[in-house]
Amino acid sequence: MLFGMHPHQDGPLARLRRGHEDLVLELLRKHGPLSRAELGQHSGLSRTTLSDIVTELIESGAVVATAPETAPRRRGRPVEALTLNPSAGQAIGIDFARRAVHVSAVNVAHEVIGSASEPHDPGLPWEERIALAERLVGTLADGALRLGALNAIGVGVVGPVGDPDSGPPEPCPSADLPALLRKRFEAPVLVDNNTRLAALAEATWGAAAGGQDVLYLRLSHGVGGGLVVGGSLHRGAYGLSGEFGHIAVESGDGRCSCGATGCLETVASVGAVLAAYRRAGGHADGLAALLGALEAGDPVALRTLEAAAVHIGTVLAAVCNAVGPGVIVLGGELAAAGTPLFEPVEQALRAHIMPISRDRVDLRPATLGEAGGALGAIALVLHESPLLSHYPARPG
Amino acid sequence: MLFGMHPHQDGPLARLRRGHEDLVLELLRKHGPLSRAELGQHSGLSRTTLSDIVTELIESGAVVATAPETAPRRRGRPVEALTLNPSAGQAIGIDFARRAVHVSAVNVAHEVIGSASEPHDPGLPWEERIALAERLVGTLADGALRLGALNAIGVGVVGPVGDPDSGPPEPCPSADLPALLRKRFEAPVLVDNNTRLAALAEATWGAAAGGQDVLYLRLSHGVGGGLVVGGSLHRGAYGLSGEFGHIAVESGDGRCSCGATGCLETVASVGAVLAAYRRAGGHADGLAALLGALEAGDPVALRTLEAAAVHIGTVLAAVCNAVGPGVIVLGGELAAAGTPLFEPVEQALRAHIMPISRDRVDLRPATLGEAGGALGAIALVLHESPLLSHYPARPG
Repeated sequence: MLFGMHPHQDGPLARLRRGHEDLVLELLRKHGPLSRAELGQHSGLSRTTLSDIVTELIESGAVVATAPETAPRRRGRPVEALTLNPSAGQAIGIDFARRAVHVSAVNVAHEVIGSASEPHDPGLPWEERIALAERLVGTLADGALRLGALNAIGVGVVGPVGDPDSGPPEPCPSADLPALLRKRFEAPVLVDNNTRLAALAEATWGAAAGGQDVLYLRLSHGVGGGLVVGGSLHRGAYGLSGEFGHIAVESGDGRCSCGATGCLETVASVGAVLAAYRRAGGHADGLAALLGALEAGDPVALRTLEAAAVHIGTVLAAVCNAVGPGVIVLGGELAAAGTPLFEPVEQALRAHIMPISRDRVDLRPATLGEAGGALGAIALVLHESPLLSHYPARPG
Repeated sequence: MLFGMHPHQDGPLARLRRGHEDLVLELLRKHGPLSRAELGQHSGLSRTTLSDIVTELIESGAVVATAPETAPRRRGRPVEALTLNPSAGQAIGIDFARRAVHVSAVNVAHEVIGSASEPHDPGLPWEERIALAERLVGTLADGALRLGALNAIGVGVVGPVGDPDSGPPEPCPSADLPALLRKRFEAPVLVDNNTRLAALAEATWGAAAGGQDVLYLRLSHGVGGGLVVGGSLHRGAYGLSGEFGHIAVESGDGRCSCGATGCLETVASVGAVLAAYRRAGGHADGLAALLGALEAGDPVALRTLEAAAVHIGTVLAAVCNAVGPGVIVLGGELAAAGTPLFEPVEQALRAHIMPISRDRVDLRPATLGEAGGALGAIALVLHESPLLSHYPARPG
């Protein structure tokens, strides 16, 4: 969901123009400093078009024009070299999680400059969460980060996020959020669900780095996930893709928060597994205690987790048959259980996935932890902002 | 899976060049005849680049240079206008089904020129199937179709088709097929599974025309399907996406042709439904008889179909929760049953889909029938051939 672009900025001509800006940035990223003449040769753009594009990139601070000392002078004028501005921030990622704000930033060379986070009370008002995000961004790169050339802000939020045409499927966590952020940072804002963003982050920088087709399942207080398809985040028609926690499981009869019954979430969330453990006679006041019992080899804990794992593996197999991913990433607090979870998940997955796919899909633990949402928000910006996406073979 | 491009044709420079060709074709498609000067203004390309591109398009027959009678003459030379060549075929679709060959063609303006098909013995050798396809293509547009500018051939085949990097997941129906076709038609060949192509066709010209996120399920002698994601055909990491027929159903214990047990196909294929009908005491020597019994209101036939429909709806709900489509299209011979199938499918779908998605997804019967594979093969070419895809907002 993109906020903050004027309507005319998204027409065919604006897209063409951004494609050209893209090309110029990409050439500078690959070749290092180039003269205008060299840029013209590499890009195939006319002098007039190129001049417009370069002027705008210099004005925005993304590109700087320098006269190298060694440059020969002709008619008294040094040959100007154009380079990316290394201290210009190009994208910020902010994850507004339930009880914490996480931020990350990248520069024009697409390097992650740094990450920061701070926990807060779940009831903290949105204005204060945004102020917290702004403070955290200020701490990145020792405060040397220049935000003038900021191209877009990626934002992760809890709950479903719709597409711009049909609007969000239910009230946004804060309807004013994009407007508030745009005002603070003076840049377009891209918003998506933070679990889906974690999927994109794992496929970009995490357990499935470089993966084009990735299934991410998060086992936490809720059960959710995301799909990366052809290297891009998958949203579905209404921003409701990746809701693996609400796929029905065999003989499931538990009432789910979504309003349906028998969802995977009712048997595989942290709370559901803890409740099942207690029903089976186990004692655990929280996940840490359950994880301890698993590590100590408590057979009741192991059997309880295995029962959940069979459902998880069966649902993963169904999704694999539908979308054929190359990698499955398991994240969320419950994934910390390790082998006692992964082994039975893998067994159930292999039992129900098409035999031809059995040895083609790889099950891995997530590696990015809590930073996933903010990093995924940046990946979203790098993938989706026309200015920053690759040219001409633009993803998704 | 693209065959027939030389490796260097797929490098960044070749992509850039094809992006430019693309832009020129798109401008001629939108504006009608244009002079070179006008093309230069609209495209922002330099004179040298534009001249190269136009020369190549004229040589390939895609574009013709004409001197309009009304053109003012300057220095004795008429102002040349460039137009699309209306008799130049731009893409052919061929569906090599089990017992028939279907073909379709589009011209440079992306209009479907015509379709043709002919049944054959399932054992017909590949050379003869290809010769049959060639004869059928010759009958299109009364033989006036000019194939010199043919940009690509889309081909549908039975069975899984992998991606170019990992190779096909199992022996291709004919490993020589792309080479044989390339030789006959002198154009690159794009191959995909014909059920998946039917999904793309329904999303392009059929029941879900214009749909960006479409789930297609085909209930035939096998049960398969395809996903359209963001307007493009979804393949998955190994070309194994859309295998909805192999998702496990509750209490399923039938052995499936894929090697697993309990797959949807074991309860919802035409053969499985017929067998269940006979086990329940019904008499039907084939699908036509069963459809007749359904129409006559035979309660055994209705109950049998309903049992299959519940499994179908449950699997569709699982896939919907995972990928969030806007439209579900039901095709294949069994879909001809109409309401006795669609009603219980919809009920089961609504029972298991996330409540928030319930009224967002639309269940529709397929409309393209047997032509779906060939039409989808053309849609594949229009989407994926860099020359024919849209610029700069290229799909997928």
